[in-house]
Amino acid sequence: MKTMAPKFVRPHVRALDGPAPDPPPAAGERVIKLNSNENPFPPSPKVMQAIQNVEPEMLRRYPDPTARAFREAAANVLGVGPEMILAGNGADDLLAVAARTFVASGGTLAVPQPTYALYPVLAALNDAKFVSVDWEKNWSLPVEPLLDAKPDAIFLANPNTPSATFVQPSKLAELAAAFAGLLLIDETYVDFADANCLDLVREFSNVIVIRSMSVGYSLAGLRFGFAVGQAEVVEEMAKVKDAFNCDAVAIAAACAAVEDQEYASRTWQQVRAERQRLAVELEQLGWSVLPSQANFLLATCPDGRGRDAYLGLKEQGILVRHFDKSPLSDKIRISVGTSQENNALLGGIKALAAAEKAA
Amino acid sequence: MKTMAPKFVRPHVRALDGPAPDPPPAAGERVIKLNSNENPFPPSPKVMQAIQNVEPEMLRRYPDPTARAFREAAANVLGVGPEMILAGNGADDLLAVAARTFVASGGTLAVPQPTYALYPVLAALNDAKFVSVDWEKNWSLPVEPLLDAKPDAIFLANPNTPSATFVQPSKLAELAAAFAGLLLIDETYVDFADANCLDLVREFSNVIVIRSMSVGYSLAGLRFGFAVGQAEVVEEMAKVKDAFNCDAVAIAAACAAVEDQEYASRTWQQVRAERQRLAVELEQLGWSVLPSQANFLLATCPDGRGRDAYLGLKEQGILVRHFDKSPLSDKIRISVGTSQENNALLGGIKALAAAEKAA
Repeated sequence: MKTMAPKFVRPHVRALDGPAPDPPPAAGERVIKLNSNENPFPPSPKVMQAIQNVEPEMLRRYPDPTARAFREAAANVLGVGPEMILAGNGADDLLAVAARTFVASGGTLAVPQPTYALYPVLAALNDAKFVSVDWEKNWSLPVEPLLDAKPDAIFLANPNTPSATFVQPSKLAELAAAFAGLLLIDETYVDFADANCLDLVREFSNVIVIRSMSVGYSLAGLRFGFAVGQAEVVEEMAKVKDAFNCDAVAIAAACAAVEDQEYASRTWQQVRAERQRLAVELEQLGWSVLPSQANFLLATCPDGRGRDAYLGLKEQGILVRHFDKSPLSDKIRISVGTSQENNALLGGIKALAAAEKAA
Repeated sequence: MKTMAPKFVRPHVRALDGPAPDPPPAAGERVIKLNSNENPFPPSPKVMQAIQNVEPEMLRRYPDPTARAFREAAANVLGVGPEMILAGNGADDLLAVAARTFVASGGTLAVPQPTYALYPVLAALNDAKFVSVDWEKNWSLPVEPLLDAKPDAIFLANPNTPSATFVQPSKLAELAAAFAGLLLIDETYVDFADANCLDLVREFSNVIVIRSMSVGYSLAGLRFGFAVGQAEVVEEMAKVKDAFNCDAVAIAAACAAVEDQEYASRTWQQVRAERQRLAVELEQLGWSVLPSQANFLLATCPDGRGRDAYLGLKEQGILVRHFDKSPLSDKIRISVGTSQENNALLGGIKALAAAEKAA
């Protein structure tokens, strides 16, 4: 149902595709949902307590525009100063703020591809050129082609999506040193990785790291993320964000979440253990699985028919993600679930193979 | 403490002022806070109940990107279709989305001034020209000069801030009919007015109305607002917003608030009654007060020294707003509080007059 966009809408916006028509399952619909990389475990009980403690006055008044309570809590955990942290309404908010802060209209945003689908949209909204460079063999970083694009900014998801692969901090230090623009490292999935790039922020003023509370802290529904950068960079980004981008309930809940590191890291360990088991079992079934540093796996089907696997699983009530373009079309992306969910997925895949053999 | 902005920050951003250094009162600080136009009454008990009912699963999963539950609830109250509503993270989010949807880089945003201070910032962030036209005598709308600017969009706060004055819908219908661009009517304060412009949206495809839950529904801390426009316009704005701009807790609370019209309208009536009383009493003290259709008053000091009144009240622990520029410098903006708060304000003003007489 494509309607005609009115002529007073900017051409750049008219040219954009609308949001993907992939509504969340209806309430009560029974599916195994392994398609959007949520943490399979609920948030910390301390988060629920913080929400129970919300008082009418917290709602009636405007929230603290600087989310100071959260910045201090997160700074304490990360070992940086609170002036190095900017809070946002989800990591997406901070990615949009970064694009508006660092990428001029007519400028260039460069990324290695495939990667997170939001980046080209942000470039388009800023009237900026979008340059995407294919990952090199084994998903290693195409440093020279990225620099050759002479971009205002390079955005890099690390771990990347949908590949779940990880670029070592030492490699990104080389890139930051060779680059005059802004290097944004989107660490949405980093809580499940062996390393992270926080140290690069201290060393390079042109590096910012984006963190999300959605996955590592099981708060996708709450919308909370933060950027870490040197103080004078964060100060510029603060001019660009909506004044009251974070609400008082989310600030209180995010504080409780980040302060309960013990709970969150237990979920990370459980996900990592299940990730390992799932990868091994998939390979035993003839799938090939990229080494993952995230809470999901990119797995290549034995018969190379990714879309068929996606549809076949969907028919069994198991949702995974398929990307219908090269080099991804022979693969599916599977979020690591609870052990029960992962068993259901493995059962679903075995059922597909059995049906194919019978056919 | 102005630091040097790094050279990889966009010039348009470097040129912006930072956020105003006006932190909210510290917890436990006892002030009469009549400076930021919050509703003096708490939100509906049904909102508190909705927050008590938040379940871990609402936080763990991504929220509904379209906030369908809220759009249906609001559509029901307003008598429009849910496809005419776009939900946002506060009215500010929707103003930013509108600027990005309708104002091209190199284009023009026009407003009557003085008005809401966010509008010029949005123009700057879009690399757009900002044209502000002085209100005509008695705060009536400068229609011809606004059209002469040939803008991509006109943004109008109605009721306006800080004047609290109101432009009649019939006048805005004339403007919409004569204008090829987008007319945005920011109705953040409309719940306290005698009329509103919702009917214009049905009549003109180039009109959108922005509503806020912050003031009328006592939810400033929650960040929730919505835009109303014709479906094909809302569809374009939906491409531009962050995918998950509204969180699951805020959606649930905003639903409860909008469904409890009885509670909210009781607060509106109480504020309107106090507004009337406060205006009469201020005029008896020699102040001149603009007729207000909002939950605040713009009042001119008898001695024309607005800044002194602001500072003198602040010393007594009473916060109001002063704008240090023509034609506002002889005035203060006073949010209508509870009757106790308004009595404290009137007492503070009498004390100032007595001190001046004694000096």
